[in-house]
Amino acid sequence: MSNQHISSAFDRDLEAIQAQIMKMGGMVERAILDAAKSLETRDVELAEQVRAGDKAIDALEQTINEEAARVIAIRAPTAIDLRLILSVIKISASLERIGDYAKNMAKRTSVLSGLPEVDGSQTALRRMAREVQDMLKNVLDSYVQRDAELALNVIQQDTDVDQMYNALFREFLTFMMEDPRNITPCMHLHFIAKNTERMGDLVTNIAEQVVYLVTGETPEEGRPKGDLSSTDLSVSKV
Amino acid sequence: MSNQHISSAFDRDLEAIQAQIMKMGGMVERAILDAAKSLETRDVELAEQVRAGDKAIDALEQTINEEAARVIAIRAPTAIDLRLILSVIKISASLERIGDYAKNMAKRTSVLSGLPEVDGSQTALRRMAREVQDMLKNVLDSYVQRDAELALNVIQQDTDVDQMYNALFREFLTFMMEDPRNITPCMHLHFIAKNTERMGDLVTNIAEQVVYLVTGETPEEGRPKGDLSSTDLSVSKV
Repeated sequence: MSNQHISSAFDRDLEAIQAQIMKMGGMVERAILDAAKSLETRDVELAEQVRAGDKAIDALEQTINEEAARVIAIRAPTAIDLRLILSVIKISASLERIGDYAKNMAKRTSVLSGLPEVDGSQTALRRMAREVQDMLKNVLDSYVQRDAELALNVIQQDTDVDQMYNALFREFLTFMMEDPRNITPCMHLHFIAKNTERMGDLVTNIAEQVVYLVTGETPEEGRPKGDLSSTDLSVSKV
Repeated sequence: MSNQHISSAFDRDLEAIQAQIMKMGGMVERAILDAAKSLETRDVELAEQVRAGDKAIDALEQTINEEAARVIAIRAPTAIDLRLILSVIKISASLERIGDYAKNMAKRTSVLSGLPEVDGSQTALRRMAREVQDMLKNVLDSYVQRDAELALNVIQQDTDVDQMYNALFREFLTFMMEDPRNITPCMHLHFIAKNTERMGDLVTNIAEQVVYLVTGETPEEGRPKGDLSSTDLSVSKV
């Protein structure tokens, strides 16, 4: 009976923390979309909002960590429960980093506003950001529903993001070679593209954790690695 | 008496995990140095060793996480002890990511070997990598010695790394504008420079955790942010 009580108290605590994770996830999704929008529409004010909003995301991570530590201390969960509560710490850390990348994207809006536009790149970047936001939404759903299959889909979805990045990488090189005035804006845009690709990797990390939580096994090493810019392959295309 | 026993058993467990953190840190330091060396000397074989070695770093993080979870489960530490054991999880996660960046640097060695050399850049990158390795050594020392002052020095040291990055960023833009043949190698080199700057940020994160562990307070927000490439400042210099 006492055990039963402890267990359901733990469940309530865990649910409360998970609700905060979902809240944090929503804030990060918003930040990604707004950052990409500010970039495309050269909306410096919106970019400033994203930058300012990142503080709230950081604060929420801190709260989640403290809450998780408190639950561990008072409930002394074992085995699977402990694994669940520790996953909260890891997932919130990944969300915080995705938020940082969104902030970084927003930061570059004001710089890019003062530079020549590069044909359609901002639109392509926004499309890529939307895909990452969709991945994030899906992975958070897979987390609360403990749905390993959905999480595996997210891992698969990341290959699309990687392909978008590879296409952009080649495009930027071409633009820069065509006209040196494109070099500075393309350096910044490439940066944003790479950071967006990294957000996708972070979402993939979360998806891998969900798979581990649900099945007890890590998805196999052969996870699709789609960024080819560090291999000869993409360079040979230039 | 029984309490005493539990406490020292916890201390032994914690020390054992910390020893693994130090081991992991040593492996990551090695990876940074070797990756930078492989880049400068175009040593594809050494680069391959760094890539292969990253698996052992990842495995050690996994072991540390499991060990930390085991200690939490059997010792049910409270307050400060729990904070100590949770910090182990965060620090090993940062080390794992620094290892990933080193692997990424090594990966680009083979691509860059096939491209024209860019005046002195690889040497500058290696110097930057050495600085980050030195920061990492210092932060791990500050961690085991619970030395907040040393940790604060590391945070300060990161501004040097940021300055090195800013100088390289401007250099790459100049090289690319001078000669379009420099564009492709400079894109890769800029990448490496940025990743090295990020490694410095991750070491700084560890330093902030050490400060928090020792003093119970987070070092103030006003942490020096030296990467100016996302602000107008550095761009206006180009």
